[in-house]
Amino acid sequence: MFNVKSRTEVFEIIKNNFTMESISTEKISLYDSLGRITSQDIFSKENLPSFNRSSVDGYAVKAFDTFGSSDSVPSILKLVGEVMMGDKPHFTIGSGEAAYVPTGGEIPQGADSMVMIEYTEDYSDGFINILKASSPGGNVVMLGDDILANEIAIKASHKIRPQDMGILAALGYEEIPVKRRLNIGIISTGDEVVAVNAKITGAQVRDVNTFTIYGGLLEMGINPRVYGIIKDDFGIMKNTLLKALDECDAVLISGGSSVGTRDQTLNVIEAIKRPEDAGVLVHGIAIKPGKPTIIGKIKDKAVFGLPGHPASAYFIFKIIVGWYINAMNGIDDAHKTPSIQVILDVNYPSNAGREEYLPVSIYKENGITKAKPIFGKSGLITTLSRADGYIHIDRNKEGLAMGSKVNVLII
Amino acid sequence: MFNVKSRTEVFEIIKNNFTMESISTEKISLYDSLGRITSQDIFSKENLPSFNRSSVDGYAVKAFDTFGSSDSVPSILKLVGEVMMGDKPHFTIGSGEAAYVPTGGEIPQGADSMVMIEYTEDYSDGFINILKASSPGGNVVMLGDDILANEIAIKASHKIRPQDMGILAALGYEEIPVKRRLNIGIISTGDEVVAVNAKITGAQVRDVNTFTIYGGLLEMGINPRVYGIIKDDFGIMKNTLLKALDECDAVLISGGSSVGTRDQTLNVIEAIKRPEDAGVLVHGIAIKPGKPTIIGKIKDKAVFGLPGHPASAYFIFKIIVGWYINAMNGIDDAHKTPSIQVILDVNYPSNAGREEYLPVSIYKENGITKAKPIFGKSGLITTLSRADGYIHIDRNKEGLAMGSKVNVLII
Repeated sequence: MFNVKSRTEVFEIIKNNFTMESISTEKISLYDSLGRITSQDIFSKENLPSFNRSSVDGYAVKAFDTFGSSDSVPSILKLVGEVMMGDKPHFTIGSGEAAYVPTGGEIPQGADSMVMIEYTEDYSDGFINILKASSPGGNVVMLGDDILANEIAIKASHKIRPQDMGILAALGYEEIPVKRRLNIGIISTGDEVVAVNAKITGAQVRDVNTFTIYGGLLEMGINPRVYGIIKDDFGIMKNTLLKALDECDAVLISGGSSVGTRDQTLNVIEAIKRPEDAGVLVHGIAIKPGKPTIIGKIKDKAVFGLPGHPASAYFIFKIIVGWYINAMNGIDDAHKTPSIQVILDVNYPSNAGREEYLPVSIYKENGITKAKPIFGKSGLITTLSRADGYIHIDRNKEGLAMGSKVNVLII
Repeated sequence: MFNVKSRTEVFEIIKNNFTMESISTEKISLYDSLGRITSQDIFSKENLPSFNRSSVDGYAVKAFDTFGSSDSVPSILKLVGEVMMGDKPHFTIGSGEAAYVPTGGEIPQGADSMVMIEYTEDYSDGFINILKASSPGGNVVMLGDDILANEIAIKASHKIRPQDMGILAALGYEEIPVKRRLNIGIISTGDEVVAVNAKITGAQVRDVNTFTIYGGLLEMGINPRVYGIIKDDFGIMKNTLLKALDECDAVLISGGSSVGTRDQTLNVIEAIKRPEDAGVLVHGIAIKPGKPTIIGKIKDKAVFGLPGHPASAYFIFKIIVGWYINAMNGIDDAHKTPSIQVILDVNYPSNAGREEYLPVSIYKENGITKAKPIFGKSGLITTLSRADGYIHIDRNKEGLAMGSKVNVLII
């Protein structure tokens, strides 16, 4: 039967078999960059700020002149000018002098500190009373404090967030170099599987996996390509897979990966592999749900055979295919995966020796956030949408105790 | 100066002032439904599964007939048929009888259990040896086990995930009723602010807030509308805000919300408000960063005045505007916000009396995931993109101890 591999072994096999550097690049508008992956380090072309900038409304001074100032003993400085927003000041601050600068304005030469307007008094007599001492550099962002010219602003292989769009805008990047979106093909198999708009007759079921995987790919910034529902026919399956391999970077086939009379995925991979292709790399992963998973390599492209059960197929898509997609894009941020901390509301026994992901729903009771396992027979579809996430149970653990703190992964 | 409100007070004000039921609805293709918000409860139109379905490859039996079976003492049942995938069986299972059914196939009438093929032996003599007892309902998903006709499949005001697309496909929904995407306008203000493609002269800075907010709105499924950079001119500002209010559901203005001579947002809101408009509802929130935030109400639409500093503006966008957007869409899942559990690598003092969100970067050291606060002067832009998230420090806390476990919110 299966020569079952652990998740870690599978990750190693993926890493060793697929070229991560093969993705071509393109330049896109900053407006379109959300969620795209940078294809190179992006450097600052200039110092930011490009001038010494005030971070408050107030007076530019030499800090030394304000030492010892207080409400009762103010320092009295001569007002020598006012800086307008966005303008370059054409005067300097000497000892005993001050000039008004608004938030974001440039500090005149000679000044090294800003006193907030709240700590000053202006009697319109050409002088300004300073009521509080200010330290050198106080309330000032110095030239280059934010980022220096030729420093890396955003690293290569980084998924662009709104915050990153901001720093790219600050540095004047209208166009961003990114990796091309991967194209991934989706094939559903099974004689019993019919289209979403079909009227069900006999023992048919509608195609669920195409849609969960389609949504999952979109969420990861991938172009999904739908190849429809393929009956359990070796010839059609083979031709469809060959077509998908020509048009896509990887192909996901759901259904037909358990040991049964109908199972074509394995046969088709072996049938179309050329002498130089590795063919089937993995058949079976020691993970619940989703054990009967296939990973193949044809023409340097990945072919995944996902379980037919929708909950298992989607789960393996997130855990295994998701890892492949991140690896292809050079993203390695597993330690930054968010989760929700909850209290488990039951005792849950688990089989040691196989890691398990337990689907749970999350609810709040008396101010405490709790998780309730979603029990249900294997193969239920509603399990998928009733789950808020999954609790990971290590292969060495025999279960989880009621009332224990657990992390729910949002998958 | 400010009549500063707590975050909770601000949430109450938003909830009490903006009509959540005003969003119109539309029907969209299931393929386009990821991230959209359902506009009504979506019911199952049928029983799922619509038949008693096998979840294994094996033999349909009366469980009673298998009781006591073992390797050494198998039960011997008469093979009366084979069910093909997707077909309706036209025979029944009587006492002492069995029929082959593949995974996903329909169980014939009379059978109440499936025996996995691994626990059977077939000597091709018209009989099948059962090597293990099976319980009633074992390996069978009964009609309606997944969902019953007229049961709610997806609730109203639910953000559609890939999993939800799956259940909608299973139930035959090609088109999904969703709330119209909100249109939200973005206005940047400030005489010193120039476009991303501008060559910087004097003390100018490029427009950052338009892009962080644009990306943030996209991420929340909102249509952003960019109104560009408005100089600190009362007339232009007023006309732009009026135009944006006509075209959008809400308007976000960044810059100009602190107490200073340039501050127009407050004046413009007050100037354009009609007698029936509430005008300024909030001016100042007791939250760091982002204290000088304005919330106004004109023509039943929200106007947010965000701080000018990019890090503060984006932060208030996520915490306050994000809450407004969720409230408008009827989403209330704050207890499902994921975070990353880390060890804080420094002592961090905080001002009691004001809640604080401390930006941190996350890294792994000796197998431990840690957070390092991003220190830096107020107004730095790189703070934004260097942060992986924020640690929330309650208003009653005086700080956080080095080595303590903290949750990092991914914002």
